[in-house]
Amino acid sequence: MPVLENPSLEEVSKAIIDAVKKRETVLMVARCIVEYAGRSFSRLGEGDRILILKPDGSLIIHREKGYSPVNYQPEGSIVNVKVENGKLFLRSIRRRPEEIMDIYMSKVYVFFSKKLDDRALFEMWGNEEDIKRAIILEPSLLGEKFKVVKDERKMGNRGYADLLLVDENGTYVIVEIKKGTAGIDAVEQLLKYVDYYQKAIGRSVRGMLVAPNISKNALQKLEASGLEYVKIDPRKVWTILKAQKGILSFL
Amino acid sequence: MPVLENPSLEEVSKAIIDAVKKRETVLMVARCIVEYAGRSFSRLGEGDRILILKPDGSLIIHREKGYSPVNYQPEGSIVNVKVENGKLFLRSIRRRPEEIMDIYMSKVYVFFSKKLDDRALFEMWGNEEDIKRAIILEPSLLGEKFKVVKDERKMGNRGYADLLLVDENGTYVIVEIKKGTAGIDAVEQLLKYVDYYQKAIGRSVRGMLVAPNISKNALQKLEASGLEYVKIDPRKVWTILKAQKGILSFL
Repeated sequence: MPVLENPSLEEVSKAIIDAVKKRETVLMVARCIVEYAGRSFSRLGEGDRILILKPDGSLIIHREKGYSPVNYQPEGSIVNVKVENGKLFLRSIRRRPEEIMDIYMSKVYVFFSKKLDDRALFEMWGNEEDIKRAIILEPSLLGEKFKVVKDERKMGNRGYADLLLVDENGTYVIVEIKKGTAGIDAVEQLLKYVDYYQKAIGRSVRGMLVAPNISKNALQKLEASGLEYVKIDPRKVWTILKAQKGILSFL
Repeated sequence: MPVLENPSLEEVSKAIIDAVKKRETVLMVARCIVEYAGRSFSRLGEGDRILILKPDGSLIIHREKGYSPVNYQPEGSIVNVKVENGKLFLRSIRRRPEEIMDIYMSKVYVFFSKKLDDRALFEMWGNEEDIKRAIILEPSLLGEKFKVVKDERKMGNRGYADLLLVDENGTYVIVEIKKGTAGIDAVEQLLKYVDYYQKAIGRSVRGMLVAPNISKNALQKLEASGLEYVKIDPRKVWTILKAQKGILSFL
């Protein structure tokens, strides 16, 4: 895990070769020029940048601004390095499709390499299933005291309602969940279920669309149809699921 | 430009606040957990990662593998940092749309911050115009001794041919250039020009499609129509344009 401050280019060249051998991740801040030939050709004039070279061959270059790298090579690229004409020359070659990135470093401010120990899972949630799980765990998320009657209630041959609830007055509530912005389709789907279920049980039921957002025309149609919209806050869903999972408390 | 090796979390907390004030770019390798809530929700368990925090508020987190960051926040995000429960807690908040990223660091291996001096232009080339410029500078790129007769030769009301050349036998050559994979359209376009020009000048001319690649069916149609295909190497174009610009010689 060497940290080199203002190293000579020869030192850096050796350190890179060493790190690649040991399958360490390399981090540098360097003054450099970058040239790329592949899907297009580009040249980035001299400036201070961050360079990341990973053991899988991927190479990422960041400038001072923005979250996107200015240049990158994907995993599987091969790296060569040498000192020539007073510059540290690094070439990354991707074979197929062929892409070449050349970096000419005139100054390295800092060099760091380390084998990163990272075996953690990346877990993503926030789909309809997650929102439903949060509602089942905590129905008050919908703003009233509900009881969950059924998860995935079949609505004849019209499909499945995401949730069937009952409110404090004993009225059934059919819930349709969307993870993003609910549109007209979602309203029509819910309406179909409500119509079916009212006929099936012979009394009036509530229809509730649950989503982080709703489009303007979907909201108009929903209100005109006597249905309800509950805006759900993704962070609340997150908090409930996190609490359930026993992971770190959200500050 | 502080470099901190195995610093205490308090030191890092102060250093981050200091760097943000001075509009420096921060680079860290840290053992951390990352949680995100916004367009979706995600959690990345504990592991060693690279963190980049830029003065524009963007935040990028890299794992050991792949060229894509595992998490990022875009420019304009606000960062807060504190030490709590033995962890360095960093929260990045994007206001609209609201996105929150929480990083819990248990160990910082290295911290580095610096004001990056980077005023260079990012120049990209590789479009049809660039390929044409390279051919004009060095017609032998097309594999024969050609002379350039005209750049953008009007073909009646059919459009403009990219280049009109003449070969060593005095035969005219109409050149159509494509930057990516040439398809049937390009062949039909070239054929139209060739037909027009042969009638216009009353004798046979050559038609040449120049591109880095050609689709199979385009090549079949091209050959059946008596036209030619010249595969052009983007790196050669690059080399010619670079030499012309007097920039660093390609190794």
